[in-house]
Amino acid sequence: MGEIIQLNNLNKNFNNEVNKLTALCHEDLESTNTLIIEKLDSNVPLIKEIASYLILSGGKRLRPLLTACTFHLINRKKDNSKNYIGLAAAVEFIHAATLLHDDVIDDSKKRRGSLSANEVWGNKTSVLVGDFLFSRAFQLMTKYGNLEILKILSDTSVVISEGEVLELINDKDLTINEDIYFKVINGKTASLFSAACQVGGISANGSLKEIEALKSFGTNFGMAFQLIDDAIDYSSSDEKLGKNIGDDFKEGKITLPIILAYLRSNDEEKIFWNKNLVNLDQSSDDLAKAILIIKKYNCIKDTIDRARHFTNVAIDSLETFENNEYRKTLMNLISASLNRFN
Amino acid sequence: MGEIIQLNNLNKNFNNEVNKLTALCHEDLESTNTLIIEKLDSNVPLIKEIASYLILSGGKRLRPLLTACTFHLINRKKDNSKNYIGLAAAVEFIHAATLLHDDVIDDSKKRRGSLSANEVWGNKTSVLVGDFLFSRAFQLMTKYGNLEILKILSDTSVVISEGEVLELINDKDLTINEDIYFKVINGKTASLFSAACQVGGISANGSLKEIEALKSFGTNFGMAFQLIDDAIDYSSSDEKLGKNIGDDFKEGKITLPIILAYLRSNDEEKIFWNKNLVNLDQSSDDLAKAILIIKKYNCIKDTIDRARHFTNVAIDSLETFENNEYRKTLMNLISASLNRFN
Repeated sequence: MGEIIQLNNLNKNFNNEVNKLTALCHEDLESTNTLIIEKLDSNVPLIKEIASYLILSGGKRLRPLLTACTFHLINRKKDNSKNYIGLAAAVEFIHAATLLHDDVIDDSKKRRGSLSANEVWGNKTSVLVGDFLFSRAFQLMTKYGNLEILKILSDTSVVISEGEVLELINDKDLTINEDIYFKVINGKTASLFSAACQVGGISANGSLKEIEALKSFGTNFGMAFQLIDDAIDYSSSDEKLGKNIGDDFKEGKITLPIILAYLRSNDEEKIFWNKNLVNLDQSSDDLAKAILIIKKYNCIKDTIDRARHFTNVAIDSLETFENNEYRKTLMNLISASLNRFN
Repeated sequence: MGEIIQLNNLNKNFNNEVNKLTALCHEDLESTNTLIIEKLDSNVPLIKEIASYLILSGGKRLRPLLTACTFHLINRKKDNSKNYIGLAAAVEFIHAATLLHDDVIDDSKKRRGSLSANEVWGNKTSVLVGDFLFSRAFQLMTKYGNLEILKILSDTSVVISEGEVLELINDKDLTINEDIYFKVINGKTASLFSAACQVGGISANGSLKEIEALKSFGTNFGMAFQLIDDAIDYSSSDEKLGKNIGDDFKEGKITLPIILAYLRSNDEEKIFWNKNLVNLDQSSDDLAKAILIIKKYNCIKDTIDRARHFTNVAIDSLETFENNEYRKTLMNLISASLNRFN
């Protein structure tokens, strides 16, 4: 069970580093939250109610934090304008819009421990409020961004929606190619992490070389983040530790540990995966069984190995910058994801 | 039946004027269509398939035509750049995105005489491909627009999504206030008509006064357009004439003729409306009965009266401009909607 306990520690350790990043950028986070609340307002009160329910439900604000931190990492601005705050809010609004639509696509019942918005108000309302949040994001970008930033964020929106469609058409395909899976998680997670970082850097008048470094950092951090999330979901059957273990399994999500396990499984095990993840025919001890098969074929270790690859590239990207407290915090954040496996 | 036959003529007459507008701007329309096809391309082939199915299914391209025509109405540009073509494509992409999401929200089975995209590929795919088209629109605007245009289009997107939510929360409410209904159709139709016109004018270096006139023209034209569409749906029970009569009735849509009819109905008729439009419990002769009640209370005439009001404001807005062939075509287009009732 050694590997499993380590993964839960890893999650806890990562959350500690997020808390440190939050403390470092707490003024910016306050400003971003103020702007978010201001921009949740709508002529249609129900929109504010639903959007607030999701956005004010205690997410970590990881993406706005990345924008703020990458801004300060470089900050070479002569004036005191704080456009990056508006852009950080825009990034969070894009993220929230995709969560609303994701939950509709996945028929999710829960989000951050509460009922999902689609469960409370229905799928139709969630689709439309997602559209509202996406439009609000676009308003914010237009107000606070320049053409370079608008291009990055609009390109990112295309990559996100392409990733979502790619995920949907490969839904329940246990034989999905690992590279296609990487494209899916690039769309789902890495592309917006990357945009959040680039937007911070551009707002700080970063050089082309620096923006390229931030693009790489954000993308690779996002890939690693998602893969570790995938791994943690199979790290223990004890729900008291860390995030809700087994959520992906219950929903029949095909993540990298599963893709690797299925590839290596014998015929009997393949029947097990199909029964549980494709037909969603699960009994109470099936999660434990799944974890045993995953462990037997070293699939968590291999998932973490893939994550380590992306982490290493992300760390190298940060070497471009001078070693200030912002770089240190970002380094610690990404290292926290993996350093127990070195 | 005089009123009813006139309405079908009206629809035919309006289509003739759209054809004239199309002929006048046919080069721009060709260019816009070329760009649309180029931008339907995606790394995920299914996206192109679905988006093409909708966008290339023979819509009138009324919104891009408005952008092109309002551009030429003013054209005071020194260079030959054709940014308005890219913006016309962006407006059509926003329109297509809202159609995809609308059809999901309304559970529509048909669109322009064919199966709707959600009927062929399912709701989930339609939601995501709608997101893709909206993101593509944003890319196009960023490439071809300036900050003023981006503000207009992003503000419009917010108004559209607010209108959609407003419509959804008032779904099946036969007692909906007429002013709220106007807000709904402003979001659904008028706001994007208005944006399409403003974007054309700004691209042509129009003055502030001219852009304000185009904003008013587009909004009021859009309001009239939607109200006439509402009226035509109850204009005859003969499906051979004009658009598909009775579609709104079959779907239980609460449009202005219904809002007025319900307000004026006796108790027995109110039961009829509830049975047909709220419970969707309809028998073969109910559409004819509905048309009789609507006629009894002059609801088509009154709907057209409201449309006439908006039409008159739209016509006045065009007086600002010199009387060239573009103004004449727009005047004829909007007059065609109503001149049989003067």
